[in-house]
Amino acid sequence: MREVVVGGAQMGPIQKSDTREAVVERMIALMDRAHEAGCDLVVYPELTLTTFFPRWYMEDQREVDSWFEREMPNEATAPLFKRARDYGMAMSLGYAELTPDGHHFNTQILTDKTGAIVGKYRKVHLPGHDEFDPERSFQHLEKRYFEPGDLGFPVWRALGGIMGMCVCNDRRWPETYRVMGLQGVELVMLGYNTPSVNSQKGDEGPEKRLFHNRLVVQAGAYQNSTWVVAVAKAGVEDGHPLIGGSLIVNPDGEVVAEAKTEDDELIVHPCDLDACNFGKETIFDFARHRRIEHYGPITGQTGIVRPKE
Amino acid sequence: MREVVVGGAQMGPIQKSDTREAVVERMIALMDRAHEAGCDLVVYPELTLTTFFPRWYMEDQREVDSWFEREMPNEATAPLFKRARDYGMAMSLGYAELTPDGHHFNTQILTDKTGAIVGKYRKVHLPGHDEFDPERSFQHLEKRYFEPGDLGFPVWRALGGIMGMCVCNDRRWPETYRVMGLQGVELVMLGYNTPSVNSQKGDEGPEKRLFHNRLVVQAGAYQNSTWVVAVAKAGVEDGHPLIGGSLIVNPDGEVVAEAKTEDDELIVHPCDLDACNFGKETIFDFARHRRIEHYGPITGQTGIVRPKE
Repeated sequence: MREVVVGGAQMGPIQKSDTREAVVERMIALMDRAHEAGCDLVVYPELTLTTFFPRWYMEDQREVDSWFEREMPNEATAPLFKRARDYGMAMSLGYAELTPDGHHFNTQILTDKTGAIVGKYRKVHLPGHDEFDPERSFQHLEKRYFEPGDLGFPVWRALGGIMGMCVCNDRRWPETYRVMGLQGVELVMLGYNTPSVNSQKGDEGPEKRLFHNRLVVQAGAYQNSTWVVAVAKAGVEDGHPLIGGSLIVNPDGEVVAEAKTEDDELIVHPCDLDACNFGKETIFDFARHRRIEHYGPITGQTGIVRPKE
Repeated sequence: MREVVVGGAQMGPIQKSDTREAVVERMIALMDRAHEAGCDLVVYPELTLTTFFPRWYMEDQREVDSWFEREMPNEATAPLFKRARDYGMAMSLGYAELTPDGHHFNTQILTDKTGAIVGKYRKVHLPGHDEFDPERSFQHLEKRYFEPGDLGFPVWRALGGIMGMCVCNDRRWPETYRVMGLQGVELVMLGYNTPSVNSQKGDEGPEKRLFHNRLVVQAGAYQNSTWVVAVAKAGVEDGHPLIGGSLIVNPDGEVVAEAKTEDDELIVHPCDLDACNFGKETIFDFARHRRIEHYGPITGQTGIVRPKE
């Protein structure tokens, strides 16, 4: 038994006008609840500190940069890091990262129980587009404001196990989980901001979006025999609705905890990392069953190559 | 609209003592129903013609070979091929293939509407083990009786679209669908024989096995924006239960038809291959979104390589 009590700290909406300080107060309130629930680890969503700004088209780079963090922790988040250290609680959170040399990433970090950052992941699969798209019912400009992550899908030994991270759209791509699975990952932390409506398909609403969220997270967990903790920023931000549905999934692909609201809400589950062993040693024993000689196109080509007519 | 009316021809149990001729009669009865339902294509399960013989430990190679087909069509299946030709119906079925030069494969074929074999797939992901295992509640000797498929995951232009096949355990591996997805697959046909209990985990019964079956098929369909038709051989074969749950899944990952019994049963759905276009052009537009520079381990290593302690 290697138990990690995990808290998924779903955040309700954050308006454009909300300050980082106000958001951090809400994050600390959730951390207090996680402490009461005995959590070893609390996981916050993608871009936790601000509204989901890629929905807004901006041409002024100074305005864009105002949504980014130049260091972490910084003045606004210092109280959060202090509280985590006081509680001896590990933490994962997402934010927009602006590096000293001017690169922009959609980043998720992991701290250990002393508040030290021990892992950093930068979102690889950026959805959306990079120029204003008049065809969409709203914009999704992640490809404009971020560069694709340059760190791959690393894992880290922490909390007695092997930890991985990814961000939002990454969870729809089986490659994400598989690269971590091939490093023995036992718990994947991920945050998301997912609009409740498909901007290119009006009849795809929240029910189907929540279904897809569950489907890809459950499949990723099962097919790699790992825990997955998926945490939303939810609710209506400046008129734009985001799905909730934060969930914790066990290595059998089963949902063991799920958020009920679109507000600040904590979901908790004691995750036994040893529960990953059975799947990794039997049906998904990669060494015995995978046949890489037939997987060539997965790394050999990016897009579709159809057979000749 | 490129509509293919698909019939999933689930087969009930086949006992050791049942002849291939008796099985083919049942297959023809299902084909008659598919014809009445206006099907363009009928899909039969893995190892359609016999009991699931890999549950039996055999040392005599002549006994093993008695479960294999040396040619296709052959005397036993000729009436099936003739009926398909008469109906102008395409067909996919699985059988144990013994090649002229002595190789053994777990094979699935596709015929066109004239009864000509236009596609052949050989199961890549063989589950189970190759020697008698006293620890298991029953045997699963696919690694003993078959070689891993040597044809990769090809696709074929047929029925106005791009068709792919896989077999049983292949469906649990995202690599299977992805290699076909990278060739633009629009309809994946697969058959399975899945024991209702995990031979290495007694408390994993039919409910969880059916859940995993749905989960991996739905995820594979959604993540590659393709139709998937998954067809069981079901029911109790010589005392050993197999799950049913044959299903047809649309490119959004939704179940549109599902078998209710563990007997011979036809499920039917008109599959519009153009329904694959939206996903392939937006959220799963591989050319725009995949980042193969970070997928290296998927083809670079077979088993897990854990980070240093």
